[in-house]
Amino acid sequence: MQIDNINVSKYPGSKKKYVDGKLFPIRVAMREVIQHPTIEIVKGKRVEHPNAPVTIYDTSGPYTDPDVIIDINKGLPRIREKWVEMRDDTYIQQDITSEYGKARRADKNLDSIRFPISHKPRTAKEGKRVTQLHYARKGIITPEMEYVAIRENLDNEQRGIKTYITPEFVRDEVASGRAIIASNINHPEAEPMIIGKAFAVKLNTNIGNSALSSGIEEEVAKAVWSCYWGGDTLMDLSTGDNIHETREWIIRNCPVPVGTVPIYQALEKVNGKVKDLTWDIYRDTLIEQCEQGVDYFTIHAGVLKEHAKLVQERLTGCVSRGGSIMTQWCVEHNQESFLYEHFEDICEILNKYDVAVSLGDGMRPGSTHDANDRAQFLELEVLGRLTEIAWKHDVQVIIEGPGHIPMHKIKENMDKEIEACHGAPFYTLGPLTTDIAPGYDHITSAIGAAMISWYGTAMICYVTPKEHLSLPNLNDVRDGVIAYKISAHAADLSKGLPGANVRDDALSKARYEFRWKDQFNLSLDPERAKQYYLESRRDAPEADDKFCTMCGPNFCAMRISQNIAEACDK
Amino acid sequence: MQIDNINVSKYPGSKKKYVDGKLFPIRVAMREVIQHPTIEIVKGKRVEHPNAPVTIYDTSGPYTDPDVIIDINKGLPRIREKWVEMRDDTYIQQDITSEYGKARRADKNLDSIRFPISHKPRTAKEGKRVTQLHYARKGIITPEMEYVAIRENLDNEQRGIKTYITPEFVRDEVASGRAIIASNINHPEAEPMIIGKAFAVKLNTNIGNSALSSGIEEEVAKAVWSCYWGGDTLMDLSTGDNIHETREWIIRNCPVPVGTVPIYQALEKVNGKVKDLTWDIYRDTLIEQCEQGVDYFTIHAGVLKEHAKLVQERLTGCVSRGGSIMTQWCVEHNQESFLYEHFEDICEILNKYDVAVSLGDGMRPGSTHDANDRAQFLELEVLGRLTEIAWKHDVQVIIEGPGHIPMHKIKENMDKEIEACHGAPFYTLGPLTTDIAPGYDHITSAIGAAMISWYGTAMICYVTPKEHLSLPNLNDVRDGVIAYKISAHAADLSKGLPGANVRDDALSKARYEFRWKDQFNLSLDPERAKQYYLESRRDAPEADDKFCTMCGPNFCAMRISQNIAEACDK
Repeated sequence: MQIDNINVSKYPGSKKKYVDGKLFPIRVAMREVIQHPTIEIVKGKRVEHPNAPVTIYDTSGPYTDPDVIIDINKGLPRIREKWVEMRDDTYIQQDITSEYGKARRADKNLDSIRFPISHKPRTAKEGKRVTQLHYARKGIITPEMEYVAIRENLDNEQRGIKTYITPEFVRDEVASGRAIIASNINHPEAEPMIIGKAFAVKLNTNIGNSALSSGIEEEVAKAVWSCYWGGDTLMDLSTGDNIHETREWIIRNCPVPVGTVPIYQALEKVNGKVKDLTWDIYRDTLIEQCEQGVDYFTIHAGVLKEHAKLVQERLTGCVSRGGSIMTQWCVEHNQESFLYEHFEDICEILNKYDVAVSLGDGMRPGSTHDANDRAQFLELEVLGRLTEIAWKHDVQVIIEGPGHIPMHKIKENMDKEIEACHGAPFYTLGPLTTDIAPGYDHITSAIGAAMISWYGTAMICYVTPKEHLSLPNLNDVRDGVIAYKISAHAADLSKGLPGANVRDDALSKARYEFRWKDQFNLSLDPERAKQYYLESRRDAPEADDKFCTMCGPNFCAMRISQNIAEACDK
Repeated sequence: MQIDNINVSKYPGSKKKYVDGKLFPIRVAMREVIQHPTIEIVKGKRVEHPNAPVTIYDTSGPYTDPDVIIDINKGLPRIREKWVEMRDDTYIQQDITSEYGKARRADKNLDSIRFPISHKPRTAKEGKRVTQLHYARKGIITPEMEYVAIRENLDNEQRGIKTYITPEFVRDEVASGRAIIASNINHPEAEPMIIGKAFAVKLNTNIGNSALSSGIEEEVAKAVWSCYWGGDTLMDLSTGDNIHETREWIIRNCPVPVGTVPIYQALEKVNGKVKDLTWDIYRDTLIEQCEQGVDYFTIHAGVLKEHAKLVQERLTGCVSRGGSIMTQWCVEHNQESFLYEHFEDICEILNKYDVAVSLGDGMRPGSTHDANDRAQFLELEVLGRLTEIAWKHDVQVIIEGPGHIPMHKIKENMDKEIEACHGAPFYTLGPLTTDIAPGYDHITSAIGAAMISWYGTAMICYVTPKEHLSLPNLNDVRDGVIAYKISAHAADLSKGLPGANVRDDALSKARYEFRWKDQFNLSLDPERAKQYYLESRRDAPEADDKFCTMCGPNFCAMRISQNIAEACDK
């Protein structure tokens, strides 16, 4: 199988920029939006005042670098390979060790859909833990830490904006568990990024096929597309055919950390029969995915047998796929969850590859009615205990959160999470602030996501317009990502993140000065902004008029304002 | 001119319902969504449990009543005419009194675009004030007050939900100035609605042509369309041709209160030359519009001469059209604003028709950079003083608010407004929580609108995806209204408005029970929800499967939850 190169637009009016590390030979990728000068007419003469370029956090990876030749069939450059090697605490295995992985590889029928290049997996040397948390606790600053420090600061230094984000600060945040750098040593293609309350709010996108739709090529295209629009991490939630092979294509071509919910694949392996799930099958699935390079696993280890009866009190039961699977397993076996019982074993696998654990909220409310109920908060307590265990094993942890929560109950979620989970980063799905708008749940949830991020959530999982209705297509992914970029950025402004306002101020200045192209280029979706403008101004394709059709030339307040300014200056 | 009837969809699965008044012979229009029963299989037998219909606040007026014959060329039934008559404090004028109105009527060239029926305007008898505030202060409960009390409660009584909203409570809220019922005696077609913190959050839509686009028929269609989707009030912001005639068509066919910004038309009358604006022209414009039936006027009387220099300190100057016009006028004449100077005269006009004043925020920030600055808050203080003056004249008042405000600065706006303006209802545009998403400002602002409504804003002015870029089309109006319905409803839930959760709970229950059609019908946009579902399920047009393509049949948590419930029951 060969995949045609995926056509990625370049960001208009922008160029790729790399900032060199000071501690390590690293190049941190960013995007720079070039601006037009401000034109002033002074005594009849045209004077140009330059506007500095604006540097933007760039999640698109090498796809938007004209100097990199992209070949989906070869995968992205493996930038972190040397950094991992240099630490000298890992080795390249002779072979994969997952039984399932071996079986898939041996199956000649799969050759036609297999990723063409096979990389041997890397693992920790005997007795070693290779997580960023481990290094941070030892006081070590890694290239990953310097990378994210530079990345978060954008052009703050050039602009003279004070920042608290240094490599040392990053190390301390990671060491304390308040931030994670999800970075499986087998996913060296990913550019390091940090998830933590003290940093820019991140957003996760979900892709993946279901039994009813979507093939490998489409999923890879979705992955690249979601990074282009601003997804910081990517969860492959495939539950359909060829999960193993689909994932390989995605990881090899994904410049951001990739997460999965391993129980989905484990369930596929037992043909969807929940009762047949076993620890051995699950364990092999973890190893299979660790070896492929998944950066974080959602594990619903907080769903306990005793929770099943609490679910019965609810309006909408258990709406987490993983949570409902584990609940059913507990009920059918009348036994405690194997994820909970084997959690220490899980951690001992994860710390050999630096896979972070995202503790799933199997009991998240599926309706505003069920928000903040007993099932939800009891599970949160369990997640707190599991956090301590993971940290004992030097495994990086984030905590998943709800769901459907009316506005007045959002803050309690954040406060309780910080308390119960000792400050581990919160990673929430929305929350949706009302249930009555299927078809628009990117909006019902963008409201909740913005608020909870302001309160301290580190990463928000996007919701597309198709939530509750069907699998999102490319356009839905774009709509979902942009809605969540808005929430994340609105929160960054409110948190007072150093330099967060630079882009807003630049765009507003461009708007006020009728530099339409700069306004478009600085926006989250330049293409759409321009398209909307031009729809009604086909006669003005150069977009340099001092008004738009919203108010027309005589009623443009900005134009009038400038007249006033001139009048006042006289 | 004849306008073809505008084709308004009927709400699917719904019927029009009228609730009779107890104090007055009034019929309060509502919408009822009929639900399918819940099916349970008990010992192999199918048992049906009925689900009660859900009553929904209905802004669509007679357009969705199959028993009313709509003729755009005749206008809507004049339901309030008798109520006004019965009060016996008004009379029907022999003729219109506005000079401009007379001139337009005399112009034969306009016959072709004129609304076919001419109603003589009504005005207060000598020495009378005919505002709802006046009656409320006298301790009188009007039919309008009973209407809104019934309307706000929906089916709370039938459901046994406790409510504080009684006709007496409405009267007290209106008397205190904390709520208004905008109801020009010359717009008897409008169904009474209340704007106040203690009631459901309302949303305003803006329509109107600009010099560059849109004709009468298109604007009437937009008006009807915005009511269909849930607009509670409608501002006609036309600044193009034939403002007078366009407005007549809109008012005669609009079932919700209509607002305008009279300075726009006044400026058209002087050919866009700000300097030529005079009190006389403005005054005649007010009378012209009072006689037509405009229910509330945005008046930027808080923009003072001294504010002009404050605007110079800003990143984006003055972005209010009315505000910038008045600032320019003050600067050019080196004189105090005639709106401010003549505010008592204005009030004495308004209380003869019961036109409410919406005190415009000419100094609202046009960028997050300018949020909560001196210009903005100084103007708010002036608005507080004007509120007292308006109340002295028994004129109902709402206060307009920003604009562009980052989340952490939103609450201060609400708190300051309540303090400065003595609890008069706040009516905000968004606010937009970031500047970086042109093309998606319905979302950047839905976040702020939801939050500020939760904090106490009574009405939010929608923003469409085209904000800052161009005039919205029908689809943008729909997107804007739905985004704001979401914000308003999310706020109602958070405020604990009696019965606000009924629709959420019903929809969530329908979702959990895979009653897809009920889920669609209960949603804010049934059409789109259904369309999204069917896009990927063309094979299942009846929408009765127990899963969707988002998760597929094996991974549907809701389905699994029900298996668990059954297992637990055994």
